[in-house]
Amino acid sequence: MTVTEPKGFRAAGVAAGIKGGGGLDLAVVVNDGPADVAAGVFTSNRVCAAPVIWSREALADGVLRAVVLNSGGANACTGEEGLADSAATADGLAGLLGVACHDVAVCSTGLIGERLPMAPLLAGVGTAVEGLSVSGGADAARAIMTTDTRPKTAVFNGNGWSIGAMAKGAGMLAPAMATMLVVITTDAVLTAEQANTALRAATEVSFNRLDSDGCQSTNDTVLLLSSGASGVELDTRTFTAALTTVCLDLGAQLLGDAEGSSHDIEILVKGAAGQADALEVGRAIARSNLFKCAIFGNDPNWGRVLSTVGTTKAVFDPDELDVSFNGVMVCRGGAIGEDRSLVDLSPRRVSVVVDLHAGREQAMVWTNDLTYDYVKENAEYST
Amino acid sequence: MTVTEPKGFRAAGVAAGIKGGGGLDLAVVVNDGPADVAAGVFTSNRVCAAPVIWSREALADGVLRAVVLNSGGANACTGEEGLADSAATADGLAGLLGVACHDVAVCSTGLIGERLPMAPLLAGVGTAVEGLSVSGGADAARAIMTTDTRPKTAVFNGNGWSIGAMAKGAGMLAPAMATMLVVITTDAVLTAEQANTALRAATEVSFNRLDSDGCQSTNDTVLLLSSGASGVELDTRTFTAALTTVCLDLGAQLLGDAEGSSHDIEILVKGAAGQADALEVGRAIARSNLFKCAIFGNDPNWGRVLSTVGTTKAVFDPDELDVSFNGVMVCRGGAIGEDRSLVDLSPRRVSVVVDLHAGREQAMVWTNDLTYDYVKENAEYST
Repeated sequence: MTVTEPKGFRAAGVAAGIKGGGGLDLAVVVNDGPADVAAGVFTSNRVCAAPVIWSREALADGVLRAVVLNSGGANACTGEEGLADSAATADGLAGLLGVACHDVAVCSTGLIGERLPMAPLLAGVGTAVEGLSVSGGADAARAIMTTDTRPKTAVFNGNGWSIGAMAKGAGMLAPAMATMLVVITTDAVLTAEQANTALRAATEVSFNRLDSDGCQSTNDTVLLLSSGASGVELDTRTFTAALTTVCLDLGAQLLGDAEGSSHDIEILVKGAAGQADALEVGRAIARSNLFKCAIFGNDPNWGRVLSTVGTTKAVFDPDELDVSFNGVMVCRGGAIGEDRSLVDLSPRRVSVVVDLHAGREQAMVWTNDLTYDYVKENAEYST
Repeated sequence: MTVTEPKGFRAAGVAAGIKGGGGLDLAVVVNDGPADVAAGVFTSNRVCAAPVIWSREALADGVLRAVVLNSGGANACTGEEGLADSAATADGLAGLLGVACHDVAVCSTGLIGERLPMAPLLAGVGTAVEGLSVSGGADAARAIMTTDTRPKTAVFNGNGWSIGAMAKGAGMLAPAMATMLVVITTDAVLTAEQANTALRAATEVSFNRLDSDGCQSTNDTVLLLSSGASGVELDTRTFTAALTTVCLDLGAQLLGDAEGSSHDIEILVKGAAGQADALEVGRAIARSNLFKCAIFGNDPNWGRVLSTVGTTKAVFDPDELDVSFNGVMVCRGGAIGEDRSLVDLSPRRVSVVVDLHAGREQAMVWTNDLTYDYVKENAEYST
């Protein structure tokens, strides 16, 4: 049921003809209230797309009534015209719903540097509004897919309240944040501050820890909408915990569907002098092409891990580094440890643990291997 | 003639049996003087190999009489034993030459995390010393190859003096510096200070601007040895210019032979507020897997350039960025420019120019595309 699981939401996904091939490419999610609380987190890329500029402004007052999302074009690097296109999209939906256009967020995903076909897109908005329903979440989740091979959705059911979510993202997955569009709905009663606090805390330890290919998108958007329709009031901690569960679930789905990947890699950096050190080391490893190729080749190449750790500013002594692959400590004290032939990297899930022996902090980062298929998809994507 | 082009140098390359397959794998370069001036630049990776630790110390007094280099093993992450192996290698050569062991540098390249086979290695040092000759430079250049498909050498002939050089490196090519071993010889008369100043200046604009795969090695070493045998004294500026030419030549050869690459990409970032900005932007683009895959696919994907520029801290206005591929300005003012179909990316050499319109500084960075063959080589290298 995804975004239509919580009470107070309707959604639709339609084929507007934005994307070639006639698939679903336009989604609308509407919050019917009674509340209209919202929060959002956006890409930190300084080259951000028109819909990001639009939605960030729309969200400034912590209120959203609806979101319109399209695949088939990112509307990024499209100048003033692109910004006008996002405004016109919001305006079109607002008019049909009878709400203010600055209460409508816009999300776009697809190729950078091309204008959106506005006539079919606006016609599609009309079709979507006609089709809005409390069972429309599944179509909406399908309509935002690009190179995703499957829709990503998650649901959390609390005691009389729930969270529903949909996500898209299969490439340009990098921290702060994985290239993604995510819409999360809830019928819990939240203040704007609670929504904001919870969303930032949840994304920090989930989407912001994914680094599939080190490339940060122009369009990343995560929106949280609360209808308050359950009437259930929650403390921030309880809601944040549930929201984090949903975000981690979606994050795992994004990683599992990352372009051309054959391994999901979980990198735990422990024994760090501080959180920042642990994160820096984890992200550096997650971005090492040599390391990622080694995993593709089922090779527990700890030398490539150490050589990457050595490029960071983290506190550590090279002679005290331990590295384990799937539980086998192949590097101990910065030198040869257990026999590397004891490591089995054939399963899709790979666990790498690096112990810096410099303190008590730790952090987890997730990434994928680098494969022929990643290169293929990204060499051919726009041609 | 490579390192034996200048007067006062002998070299040899032999098959010591370190590498499987029986190829050349051990090289010795000897400076017969009269001078024994030397300078070196080493990896800035904090996890550095035993030979780097050894050679850095050996060079502390600005004097070297000989260098011994091996392929077939990096002697990195090998602990105290590895350091003892490097010392024993230097000691072995020093004994045969009748020089002090701290006047012998050691360079190793190959897999990280495995001990070197010391018995055949030391025997090979003996064979190499017996074979030392003024025409041994070519064999020495072959003996240091790993995944290189061809030896890399360069010669500069001045008026009565010369520079000769050999290099190896085909992967882990990253700034500060491309994973490489380089030995440069000259018969020009230099002070230790001149040698040091010239080497740092030349590497800064050549090897330190190569970024093939963003991965920094544990073993990078560039050595400059001066015999002074020509009797020609030079001012630092003249020598630096010649040395820079040699380093740029070697750099282009390294890039041209980078693992699995099909395009050599030159990225010029201009209009920068400062050199640091220009370099940060250039390096970020050079490390974008999505950009590098696009070039492999002959796709002038300027959106991936802009989204990368947006992740940097450089001074720029997103609406003023220009991007050209091979002379065609496909992005103008942060938006769609010339027709991308006008760009022909089929030749191996690709020029990308990014104008930040924020100042007058510029910098050049070189990289490769990301290909199936890069993944293949690096997935299979150690297994």
